[in-house]
Amino acid sequence: MDYAEESLRLHYEWRGKLETVPKMEVGSREALSLAYTPGVARPCLEIQKDPAKSYELTGRWNTVAVVTDGSAVLGLGDIGPEAGMPVMEGKCVLFKAFGGVDAVPLCIRSQQVDDIVNTVALLAGSFGGVNLEDISAPRCFEVERRLKERCGIPVFHDDQHGTAIVVAAALINALKLTGKRIEEISAVFSGAGAAGTAIFKLLWSMGLRRAVLCDIAGVVYPGRSDLAENRALAELAERTRPTVRGGLKEALVGADLFVGVSAPGLLTAEMVRSMAGDPILFPMANPVPEMMPDEARAAGAAVVGTGRSDFPNQINNVLAFPGVFRGALDVRAGDINDAMKLAAAHALAYLVGDELSADYILPTAFDERVCPAVAAAVAQAARESGVARI
Amino acid sequence: MDYAEESLRLHYEWRGKLETVPKMEVGSREALSLAYTPGVARPCLEIQKDPAKSYELTGRWNTVAVVTDGSAVLGLGDIGPEAGMPVMEGKCVLFKAFGGVDAVPLCIRSQQVDDIVNTVALLAGSFGGVNLEDISAPRCFEVERRLKERCGIPVFHDDQHGTAIVVAAALINALKLTGKRIEEISAVFSGAGAAGTAIFKLLWSMGLRRAVLCDIAGVVYPGRSDLAENRALAELAERTRPTVRGGLKEALVGADLFVGVSAPGLLTAEMVRSMAGDPILFPMANPVPEMMPDEARAAGAAVVGTGRSDFPNQINNVLAFPGVFRGALDVRAGDINDAMKLAAAHALAYLVGDELSADYILPTAFDERVCPAVAAAVAQAARESGVARI
Repeated sequence: MDYAEESLRLHYEWRGKLETVPKMEVGSREALSLAYTPGVARPCLEIQKDPAKSYELTGRWNTVAVVTDGSAVLGLGDIGPEAGMPVMEGKCVLFKAFGGVDAVPLCIRSQQVDDIVNTVALLAGSFGGVNLEDISAPRCFEVERRLKERCGIPVFHDDQHGTAIVVAAALINALKLTGKRIEEISAVFSGAGAAGTAIFKLLWSMGLRRAVLCDIAGVVYPGRSDLAENRALAELAERTRPTVRGGLKEALVGADLFVGVSAPGLLTAEMVRSMAGDPILFPMANPVPEMMPDEARAAGAAVVGTGRSDFPNQINNVLAFPGVFRGALDVRAGDINDAMKLAAAHALAYLVGDELSADYILPTAFDERVCPAVAAAVAQAARESGVARI
Repeated sequence: MDYAEESLRLHYEWRGKLETVPKMEVGSREALSLAYTPGVARPCLEIQKDPAKSYELTGRWNTVAVVTDGSAVLGLGDIGPEAGMPVMEGKCVLFKAFGGVDAVPLCIRSQQVDDIVNTVALLAGSFGGVNLEDISAPRCFEVERRLKERCGIPVFHDDQHGTAIVVAAALINALKLTGKRIEEISAVFSGAGAAGTAIFKLLWSMGLRRAVLCDIAGVVYPGRSDLAENRALAELAERTRPTVRGGLKEALVGADLFVGVSAPGLLTAEMVRSMAGDPILFPMANPVPEMMPDEARAAGAAVVGTGRSDFPNQINNVLAFPGVFRGALDVRAGDINDAMKLAAAHALAYLVGDELSADYILPTAFDERVCPAVAAAVAQAARESGVARI
């Protein structure tokens, strides 16, 4: 099927992928007086006395804002806020279908960090959480950091953390298959934007200590001339302190893990053959990965995962975000922290169980155990790390 | 029934009066690829080429933001953004039930005009219209004016214009009953906040020329010492230039029309008896009017309308806003202007038809002809006044 043309046709037919539906009838004077005035004054006053009651008397407990500025939509780049809306609506559909979460798509007409932060922070009382989406790096880091400080509700940039959680889950099982330990492996990251940075940080928190980040200018190392203007990247250079110089080719020699969130076809069979034995490859560029899975296996990769649904081991954010927010909302978490992300990754990896193989390191997107398992793990981690409020 | 307690119980049961519901299934790989990636890239690119396509490829054509800062909620006053949410959710329920409009409740955590304007303006690409709600005067005037300039979509403060439309409709029929003409009557307004101001202005645009506004300090006249700090009110004083001084009692002598959006019980039988013959009374303070309808009739009122559903002639905004937005959205209007408001008022008045009587000057809230009639009139007026875009 030509997904593009059929999707366009369906979008003209749907004219919006969501609708807001009342939970009650208001077709009588009495019903109207209960759902609206004069009866509604009573729940209002309850919330005025105790704003936390907004989680019990309104939809806040189950509602997430899905927010973009349209600056990094899919692989399309900066297409503007209105043009990002079909993706945001789609995300909201997935929130409901996979997590039971009511989600509201919001597109912001500014790419100024201050504007985005102010807009979202001023709306935080309307929502139980905020899912940031398709905001370009490095602005996304500051946007998220400042919103976490101001909102008092979970703020989660899915391009960063959703991807990181699923990659972490895939890696847990890939390491099990190859008999390696995260503390001992050497990893190369191709792409140091939102996703690459977040994956690196989450794996680092799991014990990874040998890592090289590469971007379009090659290996990211302390003192590289362009890093003066990119604090986020400079911090990563300091953390990894790579000794190798050059590009992906030089960095990959002897590496155990390749994580690609960069561009199609960057990886060659020669590079894969230069890696350590039983290398693990996650070439996730979309829609065409850094190397196609069959080529990667032919070149010696022990395990391969991509973003594609037409090959095994799809690294798909939908495995993470519905359950992550479901769990966070269920315990009214004030934050989604690293402990919760790691719990989500381990829960996902655990679901594979005894069927683990090189072609099955992650549950599929339609495995109905996924959201409940992730949600339960995230909720428990929220409680244990002290951010749960009920 | 004790509406307050039963409403509270129901709000605990509902936990939010709306849900967001996907229009399609995403339970298969193929369905997911059409509603979301990779197919969704295609409609995104269409909108990037022509942002107006957002009205055809997303829910924008049918979606309105219902926005408050929680500063003037019902008669409860400044109860804060979270506490305003049950009313906003209720409003969204009415939008859907009466107008088929998808509405999203948003509460803003600031009462600064700049903050409210920036927040809403930056979100304007996500919506087809903005319904402002329960924002206190005089800030509401500036908020609305600036948003109308910036958003490029209809912005409508319902407390002002919804009320004004329904009062205008009621007046059209009350004048018919009493054989008076708007150009000749003398009107007294009690309350010069958001609603009072808007009602006055709409009636003025219909030909009213003799009017006195009263607020808590009495008659509003040019040069009154407190008006230096209230530009909106000073403008009304200049427009009306009343010769009478004092309070409501003095102002009402010989008047044909009383419009009350002030406080319970302000009107006495003696005041009503001092008015012109066959006076028309719209005492709309909520929930207890300036004078109860039976007392008003006993004192000689020819026609009485209030905000109450337990008496005839309920002046209820739900008669206006669903149809006004339905009509504006249907022709993708860039604004909701006076011509559209007047068209809505005349359409409402016309629905009463031959059954017109002192106890039936407005259709009821549950009259199913209301929304289609108002929408059609508003759409036509939008076309005729040049603000329709399709």
